[in-house]
Amino acid sequence: MLEELKQKVYEANMELQRKGLVIYTWGNVSGIDREMGLVVIKPSGVDYDTMKAEDMVVLDLNGNIVEGKYKPSTDTPTHLVMYNTYPNIGGVVHTHSEWATSFAQAGLSIPAFGTTHADYFYGDIPCTRDLTDDEINGEYEKETGNVIVETIGDRDPLEVPAIVVKNHGPFAWGKDPDNAVYNAVVLDKVAQMAYNTMTLNTRVDKVNQTLLDKHYLRKHGVNAYYGQ
Amino acid sequence: MLEELKQKVYEANMELQRKGLVIYTWGNVSGIDREMGLVVIKPSGVDYDTMKAEDMVVLDLNGNIVEGKYKPSTDTPTHLVMYNTYPNIGGVVHTHSEWATSFAQAGLSIPAFGTTHADYFYGDIPCTRDLTDDEINGEYEKETGNVIVETIGDRDPLEVPAIVVKNHGPFAWGKDPDNAVYNAVVLDKVAQMAYNTMTLNTRVDKVNQTLLDKHYLRKHGVNAYYGQ
Amino acid sequence: MLEELKQKVYEANMELQRKGLVIYTWGNVSGIDREMGLVVIKPSGVDYDTMKAEDMVVLDLNGNIVEGKYKPSTDTPTHLVMYNTYPNIGGVVHTHSEWATSFAQAGLSIPAFGTTHADYFYGDIPCTRDLTDDEINGEYEKETGNVIVETIGDRDPLEVPAIVVKNHGPFAWGKDPDNAVYNAVVLDKVAQMAYNTMTLNTRVDKVNQTLLDKHYLRKHGVNAYYGQ
Amino acid sequence: MLEELKQKVYEANMELQRKGLVIYTWGNVSGIDREMGLVVIKPSGVDYDTMKAEDMVVLDLNGNIVEGKYKPSTDTPTHLVMYNTYPNIGGVVHTHSEWATSFAQAGLSIPAFGTTHADYFYGDIPCTRDLTDDEINGEYEKETGNVIVETIGDRDPLEVPAIVVKNHGPFAWGKDPDNAVYNAVVLDKVAQMAYNTMTLNTRVDKVNQTLLDKHYLRKHGVNAYYGQ
Repeated sequence: MLEELKQKVYEANMELQRKGLVIYTWGNVSGIDREMGLVVIKPSGVDYDTMKAEDMVVLDLNGNIVEGKYKPSTDTPTHLVMYNTYPNIGGVVHTHSEWATSFAQAGLSIPAFGTTHADYFYGDIPCTRDLTDDEINGEYEKETGNVIVETIGDRDPLEVPAIVVKNHGPFAWGKDPDNAVYNAVVLDKVAQMAYNTMTLNTRVDKVNQTLLDKHYLRKHGVNAYYGQ
Repeated sequence: MLEELKQKVYEANMELQRKGLVIYTWGNVSGIDREMGLVVIKPSGVDYDTMKAEDMVVLDLNGNIVEGKYKPSTDTPTHLVMYNTYPNIGGVVHTHSEWATSFAQAGLSIPAFGTTHADYFYGDIPCTRDLTDDEINGEYEKETGNVIVETIGDRDPLEVPAIVVKNHGPFAWGKDPDNAVYNAVVLDKVAQMAYNTMTLNTRVDKVNQTLLDKHYLRKHGVNAYYGQ
Repeated sequence: MLEELKQKVYEANMELQRKGLVIYTWGNVSGIDREMGLVVIKPSGVDYDTMKAEDMVVLDLNGNIVEGKYKPSTDTPTHLVMYNTYPNIGGVVHTHSEWATSFAQAGLSIPAFGTTHADYFYGDIPCTRDLTDDEINGEYEKETGNVIVETIGDRDPLEVPAIVVKNHGPFAWGKDPDNAVYNAVVLDKVAQMAYNTMTLNTRVDKVNQTLLDKHYLRKHGVNAYYGQ
Repeated sequence: MLEELKQKVYEANMELQRKGLVIYTWGNVSGIDREMGLVVIKPSGVDYDTMKAEDMVVLDLNGNIVEGKYKPSTDTPTHLVMYNTYPNIGGVVHTHSEWATSFAQAGLSIPAFGTTHADYFYGDIPCTRDLTDDEINGEYEKETGNVIVETIGDRDPLEVPAIVVKNHGPFAWGKDPDNAVYNAVVLDKVAQMAYNTMTLNTRVDKVNQTLLDKHYLRKHGVNAYYGQ
């Protein structure tokens, strides 16, 4: 079932390791088949070195396991909130990548300082509020999804396809699992350069809106002219 | 004698190098066979490139060499204090890994800033006090073990399975040599992100206790639900 | 047409990736055949993993495509301004390399702090002014070239063969595509050490003029005595 | 002539690149045959990728070339001052390694903050004074050697086998070329951790003298007990 998507999700998980975003089992990628309404996600706590495409777990959008010999990633309820809320998302990724996690721990959004950021994220990458004790002690992983949705608000989630969850770490997403991982890689690189920028010049201003518009829109939307 | 444990300890030492925690001979891992009461440890100052499993040294818990053509690691007395004090420890590791050593040199504990930390360490990773001149000039390596034990106090050593020894560097431990090295790797990554967090936001708060509990306990103890 | 130059430009683009200056498609290198008045440049948004020498695009100095099945790099007009303005430039490169981009985002020139800098750059590596809204909304990539030329002023562009464009990133150049990439690599290394220097000692002075002269001139000009 | 030493010096130069201390041609290692009074050094500006053992240059202690088809490293006079002044030195190395160079640019000595430092350097690693204009415009490379000797003063150069030359970069030395490179690697690692320490805790104290003595002397001198 869903062999092609399982292969894609598996490859996207392995790409996390190749790009240096995860060590050990510290990350997970999922993808969705919108027609069937089924999500494929990495199993929980399985070593990247021995993991195979067939180990991916298939769930419906309510979290019922449809196929798979392993338990799905602990973070599955967060992924499901994203898929249930946003019909234009095709892949979701969670990591503890170093620089994005550092912003999450510092409780700071990642400001848009330049065109590298603007090429992919149309504005600051937000940091969520603290979860309440009730949210943490309740359905924690689902509430993590809810606070992401609350923070995104009315915006199109693909305009800024990543977020840092306070004291936790980054989630990123995209039109498919590959694109979600791509955005997670860019996120960490952008976070790293934002760190450098802020520690180099403590009074630095963000990129101005005109330049932000220019770079985002030359890559995205109807007037895009980057690429083939 | 203890061929299997010697192989494990050898592999764990080599893993230190693969993970980038040591250069040259700057680290050592040991393991214990509790039934026989024998410890296996890396020889002192032997190059990782030429070291073999059969070069590991076997000692009893009083430090008497039982087997081995080489002298054991200079830090052996520190390892022995750990094994003698804590019956639930199966492996010990010492490195000069960059970020944990930087906290040791700064004389600072590594604060729990997020879930990456909380997944493995149930609270701050402490920094020991200064050794006295008498301790340094006496049985230095044994006193290093003693100050680690003093700093851990009444706690279960596996709740926070690492420490930084002031002006020296990190020790980590675990249920076996592999797990000790795993904890040493996580320690350095957590220290690196703590450094980033503190230099990015000098007034940052630690992770709140509810979230710390949640993440530690979803991976550890009777109600754990992470993994397979 | 221009097979040799296409091979050189292709190799120079691949070298960007090998040296860690770019991820994904985040960079471009061009070269010029001065006799024919033709520029060869990387195609826009093509993956480094599948790109071939024959994919390079050939243009005249007005930007007309002479050969190539792909669209040229979006930044082509910036490259053309450089070639049209400076007859002694044979290669141009643009990246989002981490440290140089961090200075661009901080809006700071890279001060000459030592001999590593002075061996290649005869003085500070300047940061351009902000582009105006009209410049951004007009012929943006061409205006980027214009502001680089404005910043260089009356100087020989090969004396300081790199610049950081504010809130954007670095451009570097040289006598040919290889040399341009070489300068881009040195630029990022020099920027990294300038960052370290400035965060280590906030009141640091630049290298004195005598030492700057000594190192630049022992490698460049009629009295050079470095190398074979 | 001196085939064995040429091979050793060649290997030591290649090791600089493998350890990440140099890019391009940014470093040089030499070694001496004390009985013959001849020094072997890397040629100037030759690429590491194509360099061979037979390309090493042989000089006498006055700098006269005895054998070699290439010009010797530009920094040869600095090396010769070291060999002429200190009969117990067998190898000298110069690099622009990132962290040591950052201290050189900041004009700061590298403080002894911990045992990693104390295991190899018996006290702070000093930064030289500024060269005068006359020294720079005169026999610059020889004066660089002289200011190193002036800074070392009455001490045994092997007690602290490295230095940072202000606004320039590090020199390290040892009993042979291999040992000099080893010290250069340790130097950069120690500098990196000192940077981290100082930016993490701006009021940090150095390691106390008793611990510095303990670690240095357990590895060096008649009472050493580290290693086999």
